[in-house]
This record gives sequence, C-alpha cells and structure tokens, in this order.
Amino acid sequence: MRFLARVYVTLKPTVNDPQGITVLSALKNLGFDSPESVRVGKYLEVGLEAASQDEASLQVDAMCKTLLANTVIEQYRFDLEEAGA
Amino acid sequence: MRFLARVYVTLKPTVNDPQGITVLSALKNLGFDSPESVRVGKYLEVGLEAASQDEASLQVDAMCKTLLANTVIEQYRFDLEEAGA
Repeated sequence: MRFLARVYVTLKPTVNDPQGITVLSALKNLGFDSPESVRVGKYLEVGLEAASQDEASLQVDAMCKTLLANTVIEQYRFDLEEAGA
Repeated sequence: MRFLARVYVTLKPTVNDPQGITVLSALKNLGFDSPESVRVGKYLEVGLEAASQDEASLQVDAMCKTLLANTVIEQYRFDLEEAGA
C-alpha cells in the first residue's frame, strides 16, 4: 500500500531559534504589528510503500530518528495518510 | 485575542525539489527501501494578536504573500487556532 507521511520537524521549545527571530523582525519591519513570536521548522512529505499503516508508521519514525530530525535539539511529529493507488 | 497560526510552505508540484531528491537518496543509502518520493518545505508557527479569527486569517495571509512564501514557486496553507490567554 502507498502512504503519504507528513512530517513536521521543529526546534524544541527551549532551543533558541535565530531564524524565527529574524523572520519576526522582518515582519515588523514590513509593518505587521500583530505577530508576537515566530518559530521556523521543516515540513516534509514522504511518499512510501508499506504493507500496513503500522509498518509505514514504524518506517517513518525510524527515518525521523536517523535522518530527518536531529533529536538533540529538534522534535518531530507526523501523520500518515493512505495515498491513492 | 491571541492566535497560533501554523503555516505550511511547499514548492508547487511542478517545481523541481533538489533538497527532496537529496533527502530521498540519503534515505536509500541508509537502507530505507520504502520511500518513493520526498518533498521538503517549511513549517512556521506564528503567534499573533488579533481582534477576531477573520482578522488573524487576513493578517497571516498577507504575511505569507509578502514574506513567508515566494508565490512564484511556492504555495502555502495555514490553520489558525486560538491560543490560551
């Protein structure tokens, strides 16, 4: 079966996010008064082939741990969806 | 009211994604056989202050158009959630 995994990788809340601070300051400079905080993360769409939803979930979790997220400073979450045949 | 906007910025489907191709090839090299495609995008969490959900939505849309996404090659979507006081 074919699955689509949507993976969200974000810095842990305690980790400083210079990219987010820069984006926030750029928004302020552009005249946006409303934003108070910005955190920047990664978003990945992984299409994969697996026998079952459980197996796909195990696979994606292993991919996150080994490559997609640096678990020292980042946290990740993902959702899985069965993709059209 | 305080809102949290979760913004997803992805390359348009027709745009080549070298970063995604690299991640896919790295996954294969690490022994993952299941992934067939990888697309890499950005994920931003923007905390903002707005009078209503509609106003927050307008603000975030304007931020995406002016700064967060390059609408020539990228598409974006976001969801809004009322954040705790």
